[in-house]
Amino acid sequence: MSTAWTARYALRTKGIKSSAIRELLKITQRPEIISFAGGLPAPDVFPTDRFREACNKVLAEQARLALQYGATEGYEPLREMIARHTARYGVKANPENVLITSGSQQALDLIGKLLINPGDRVLVEAPTYLGALQAFGVYGADYLCVPSDNDGLCTDLLEPSLRFGPKFMYVLPNFQNPGGTTLAEGRRHELVLLADRYGIPIIEDDPYGQLRYEGEHLPPLIMVDRQNLRRDNGYSIGNVIYLSTFSKTLAPGLRLGWIVAPPDVITKMIQLKQGADLHTSTFGQMVAYEVARDNFLDEHIKLIRRVYGERRNVMLKAMEENFPPEVTWTRPQGGLFLWVSLPAGMNCDQLFQVALKENVAFVPGESFYAGNGFADEARRHFRLNFSNAVPEQIREGIRRLGVAIKKQLRELHPETVVR
Amino acid sequence: MSTAWTARYALRTKGIKSSAIRELLKITQRPEIISFAGGLPAPDVFPTDRFREACNKVLAEQARLALQYGATEGYEPLREMIARHTARYGVKANPENVLITSGSQQALDLIGKLLINPGDRVLVEAPTYLGALQAFGVYGADYLCVPSDNDGLCTDLLEPSLRFGPKFMYVLPNFQNPGGTTLAEGRRHELVLLADRYGIPIIEDDPYGQLRYEGEHLPPLIMVDRQNLRRDNGYSIGNVIYLSTFSKTLAPGLRLGWIVAPPDVITKMIQLKQGADLHTSTFGQMVAYEVARDNFLDEHIKLIRRVYGERRNVMLKAMEENFPPEVTWTRPQGGLFLWVSLPAGMNCDQLFQVALKENVAFVPGESFYAGNGFADEARRHFRLNFSNAVPEQIREGIRRLGVAIKKQLRELHPETVVR
Repeated sequence: MSTAWTARYALRTKGIKSSAIRELLKITQRPEIISFAGGLPAPDVFPTDRFREACNKVLAEQARLALQYGATEGYEPLREMIARHTARYGVKANPENVLITSGSQQALDLIGKLLINPGDRVLVEAPTYLGALQAFGVYGADYLCVPSDNDGLCTDLLEPSLRFGPKFMYVLPNFQNPGGTTLAEGRRHELVLLADRYGIPIIEDDPYGQLRYEGEHLPPLIMVDRQNLRRDNGYSIGNVIYLSTFSKTLAPGLRLGWIVAPPDVITKMIQLKQGADLHTSTFGQMVAYEVARDNFLDEHIKLIRRVYGERRNVMLKAMEENFPPEVTWTRPQGGLFLWVSLPAGMNCDQLFQVALKENVAFVPGESFYAGNGFADEARRHFRLNFSNAVPEQIREGIRRLGVAIKKQLRELHPETVVR
Repeated sequence: MSTAWTARYALRTKGIKSSAIRELLKITQRPEIISFAGGLPAPDVFPTDRFREACNKVLAEQARLALQYGATEGYEPLREMIARHTARYGVKANPENVLITSGSQQALDLIGKLLINPGDRVLVEAPTYLGALQAFGVYGADYLCVPSDNDGLCTDLLEPSLRFGPKFMYVLPNFQNPGGTTLAEGRRHELVLLADRYGIPIIEDDPYGQLRYEGEHLPPLIMVDRQNLRRDNGYSIGNVIYLSTFSKTLAPGLRLGWIVAPPDVITKMIQLKQGADLHTSTFGQMVAYEVARDNFLDEHIKLIRRVYGERRNVMLKAMEENFPPEVTWTRPQGGLFLWVSLPAGMNCDQLFQVALKENVAFVPGESFYAGNGFADEARRHFRLNFSNAVPEQIREGIRRLGVAIKKQLRELHPETVVR
């Protein structure tokens, strides 16, 4: 009886994505495996001492506030800090434009709740962040998928999809997950203009924006939107809702993200968040504020850039040395991921099995595509994470992966001698 | 433009409950006001030192785990602890039957997400917890409201509503919010039998169950269900999903709750939670585990019972002394709230305004009713919280409220001399 709830009570199944990737990540946690599959920050760079000081300070000075229920919109000094940081990018934001969320993932869930009715279309990049597909799928979204290349979303291919009237566009402009690509500046302008022309809002998801290892920072869409549209002097954000998080700069275990949006959007989000979890941990917010304040966060981000930048370089070099020339990959200027393309005929699911035998793991491309029209492309791609392994492991892991790829290639073309 | 999102992009409004009560609670935070309006635990009893030790221990010994992404289902030792505690109530539960949520409020949201399709009916008590109405309303629930009396939900009035085929029943059996009433033992058996006969699951929300100040603990519905249905020896929970939280026993600021349910329900909930916020704060879970372990929680609950029990007594005594005989109220055996009934013709919204002038506040009844059929009843009731004010404030606040009530009564019956 107890195992029959699903049938007996018609539990929802539509829109609930299968847990294939959860199962996959469990396999890759075996100790003998070097895993490039997860999307985890390096625990080596967690500012543990600073966290300990912050906890002690908060509990010594403000325990009654920190352990009590708090406001749904978030801890006021933290909202102010985020508004100030946002202003650096040229976007005038007040605390009233900021909602603290339980990680960026909750921001995606609240956006789905607010905007998606069953059957609504949502425009996404192909490939895109699988957590967004999970969050939106529950609300019954259908997807319009637009391809991307080395310069990010192909804005010249947008219009046919925009004519289908998507409810919104979901875009990761910086060091995209899983592609590792960055949306070129010209395309940012095109995207913002198209959004305004068609009256389609943009959800700008920017978890990695500050983790740039080379090149110049590009203006976020929320800023381009504001400049292009020459709005009034006061706060106005036009067509863009901006999301970010402390998960990649402080620690993901706290589950702290935020939304920057026009006031009426924030007001509605607050009402929805109240029903969803009342508010995000007061203690967690206050500790994060104490950790980040007095420019500590800025200094800490410099350290992360150094560490991750080195790991990216080590991975790229090892790939040059170990991968056959038939295989190509993106060269991300920041973030946590790069994206590998296999030659036609190769299949990343089969490669995954071979790689497991060599004790190395990645995420096959399929999870990152919303539509069925991309099955061939999905089979030919996979994602590698370079933030969570130390250089030594990266070298060895890529060596093993090179072995696996060559084995697969040999099976595919037994006549060819592979280097 | 920025203030026109709601119109321009047809933001969802259906199912989003107005924020009247949020505005109300803001007013009641003025320092001169003694507020019985909130539902806050007493910060005096937060175990701050224990929290500080726990934070230091977790960050000294397991920072890499505590600050990193964690499993969606929750921190394993915490799930085990909750499973063990649940077993005390006679319910055999394994960690696999436990999902950690970001407060009980998230459990309600996940239940709405899993079970409610627009237009589905949900059976609730009248009155009931307003946060549940918020959580379910977003998913398009229509409500079937069944009255309750001093012994809780009137199970003899259930069948007509059950014939309408609600998707589930939502019940708070212990020290109900807002009623303060406890579901009598006989009714627990009736409720469970009816649930099984009609094939309607029960959501048992039990945030206050451990905070009993007099009388004997009654078996939770999840246990009655199991006994009545004489299931197999292994784990089987039948028709009940059980919810609880650390908010009233440790600290609400952490946002930690849990669901106990059959394995296939937990599996689906995990998938939904992954899309909603990936997981609950790893750090928060590990700290709560360190605080609660080695029987600290049990000892701490004894302290809370003493403190809140005294406050309840002080409030009841002050009401006897200050309220006119036309007014009646519930005498809760535990929990945080009691429920006041005004005589016919009196209106708690008008009383609220008069009370504010006397610098005392409560929550008018209206927020706690799902249906429109209870407008008269809603106007004649209001909720008082007795956990968050010290005895001195409770005496003075109730005195002020007595003054306000007598003023209102005098306006209503100018011919009567009120004591």
